[in-house]
Amino acid sequence: MNVLAISGSLRKKSYNTALLRAAQKLAPEMGIEILDYSAVPIFNQDVEESAYPEVVTDIRGKITVADAVLFAVPEFNRTPAGSLKNLIDWLSRPDYKLWNQKPVGIVGASSGPRGASFAQYDVRRIMSYFNARTMGQPEFYCGNDEDGEFDAEMNLVDPKTTDVFKKFLAALSEHIKK
Amino acid sequence: MNVLAISGSLRKKSYNTALLRAAQKLAPEMGIEILDYSAVPIFNQDVEESAYPEVVTDIRGKITVADAVLFAVPEFNRTPAGSLKNLIDWLSRPDYKLWNQKPVGIVGASSGPRGASFAQYDVRRIMSYFNARTMGQPEFYCGNDEDGEFDAEMNLVDPKTTDVFKKFLAALSEHIKK
Amino acid sequence: MNVLAISGSLRKKSYNTALLRAAQKLAPEMGIEILDYSAVPIFNQDVEESAYPEVVTDIRGKITVADAVLFAVPEFNRTPAGSLKNLIDWLSRPDYKLWNQKPVGIVGASSGPRGASFAQYDVRRIMSYFNARTMGQPEFYCGNDEDGEFDAEMNLVDPKTTDVFKKFLAALSEHIKK
Amino acid sequence: MNVLAISGSLRKKSYNTALLRAAQKLAPEMGIEILDYSAVPIFNQDVEESAYPEVVTDIRGKITVADAVLFAVPEFNRTPAGSLKNLIDWLSRPDYKLWNQKPVGIVGASSGPRGASFAQYDVRRIMSYFNARTMGQPEFYCGNDEDGEFDAEMNLVDPKTTDVFKKFLAALSEHIKK
Repeated sequence: MNVLAISGSLRKKSYNTALLRAAQKLAPEMGIEILDYSAVPIFNQDVEESAYPEVVTDIRGKITVADAVLFAVPEFNRTPAGSLKNLIDWLSRPDYKLWNQKPVGIVGASSGPRGASFAQYDVRRIMSYFNARTMGQPEFYCGNDEDGEFDAEMNLVDPKTTDVFKKFLAALSEHIKK
Repeated sequence: MNVLAISGSLRKKSYNTALLRAAQKLAPEMGIEILDYSAVPIFNQDVEESAYPEVVTDIRGKITVADAVLFAVPEFNRTPAGSLKNLIDWLSRPDYKLWNQKPVGIVGASSGPRGASFAQYDVRRIMSYFNARTMGQPEFYCGNDEDGEFDAEMNLVDPKTTDVFKKFLAALSEHIKK
Repeated sequence: MNVLAISGSLRKKSYNTALLRAAQKLAPEMGIEILDYSAVPIFNQDVEESAYPEVVTDIRGKITVADAVLFAVPEFNRTPAGSLKNLIDWLSRPDYKLWNQKPVGIVGASSGPRGASFAQYDVRRIMSYFNARTMGQPEFYCGNDEDGEFDAEMNLVDPKTTDVFKKFLAALSEHIKK
Repeated sequence: MNVLAISGSLRKKSYNTALLRAAQKLAPEMGIEILDYSAVPIFNQDVEESAYPEVVTDIRGKITVADAVLFAVPEFNRTPAGSLKNLIDWLSRPDYKLWNQKPVGIVGASSGPRGASFAQYDVRRIMSYFNARTMGQPEFYCGNDEDGEFDAEMNLVDPKTTDVFKKFLAALSEHIKK
């Protein structure tokens, strides 16, 4: 199995990227690769027409061959991070056919208790429009309470959350195989 | 009156930018300036901390002194363009206080009949979170039917749409003065 | 094939119910039955516990045996009609397992040009939460322009819209068979 | 001051109704009256035209004279309870002018940690459409963790949550006076 994982946040100490690294450890059989898209420019249709970025072509190729895409979505201002939305806009140009029936999983981490709820469902909205095959249940909201889900090195350490995430990944595996 | 206008699209032949240019002509008394934010980089909290972009500081200053902000929101994939969301993310860092009680108007143009409905309401959601003072009614959806709302030079030419937009701008003027 | 069709509006001259009647004519092979749920009371957890309505039990049975559910969603106040949401609330009690992997199609009609866009996507959100298997594309927005999509007897008469709806129904048939 | 409070849930042991009762105790100067709308039937445009319910006329009168409306919104299936949406649909017929510039506050309680986040923002969307004057910040999400926010008699007892709610009510008071 090969799963392309996309963290919506570009910062190094991102909770969402940390979640994806935890997924790599918790489910090594899923072949999770974390995408580096830091070189993707801001989308502009003029740029699209004059000089389609090679880095985007490469990412489109990765999605095409992946068995699934796993998003970890940060919420900024009650919506998905612009960095992620910008990437997704590129991945819909010139069309969004590469998403057709692609198995997709969506999770999200936030510093409050809500686990990026709005942002996760906005990405579900987009994936529905792309005709992807998004797993509906279980959902996974990684809120961060006072105890902390992650240690100082950004390892997922909370046992309960780890267990819930493991079940999410197992369900996603089944969803991909269907 | 001085109104800062933000088109969510960076391309030259954007319907949304064209709407804002039409607004300048239809309501010269509103002092509408169209923001150029093409130099704003992709938001990344690491960049924020190491090298806060001067261009963003400048834009924050413009919003602070503006009597109102007028958004023209393109819809990509049933959500606002990532380019716009990226700008908004910057404009919420390190905090979103500059939006507090700021009068805001939101319009949107799209090539289909729906006038960027989802994208407009996503920006309303963000502005509600920012505690801005967004005008609720009238709404303005600029769909583009077969006849075309704009001519080849991107001038708003449809008389009915022009009339509805004029009323929107008059209502926004009143909303700002309140 | 047997498809349970649910119009979100209870009124007799509903555009959404009219759409479903058109679907019966356009795709007789789909075995579309339009649900009558006018006797369903307002949901209240106290009532649920003391006297679960037989009419809801019956509808749950219909959904369980149906090959698919087709929603026609009216938009009231930028969200789905309360009458429809109330029915859906009942259909999630005591649990929403009956929706698991159920093929679902969603359309919507409105008197403006947007075809109940917000309401349709709110129902998609709910169906995603229910882990249903909702068809993402094609979408179908039945706006009503000045010419009228329906005649005085509420027959769908606009040839272009009829053609688009036919394609939607053919795609839904394929989606169900998958 | 006189504030009409609307709990989206009809059941007796509703967290949301309990929140509103707590508000009455925490802010007696706000003159909070909790609306009983259990007699409101399901909206149907045919009924609207033939026999507009007196109970709805009465509620419309209450909203018209109220200084503000305070919603406590339960989330069923990632959207507001149908019972609440049904009431709101009535309150928009034959028009929604009674909401124009009406000060509105929105809170929500849920049994999970997210405090009815989606449902709260759906009501914000509706209020924006109604051109109400909804308070954007602070937000108030009443999640229910293992310790419990409420005691067995449904009194709000958690000191931290009580404190946050008090601040919300004080901010709403200021918002109303503006």
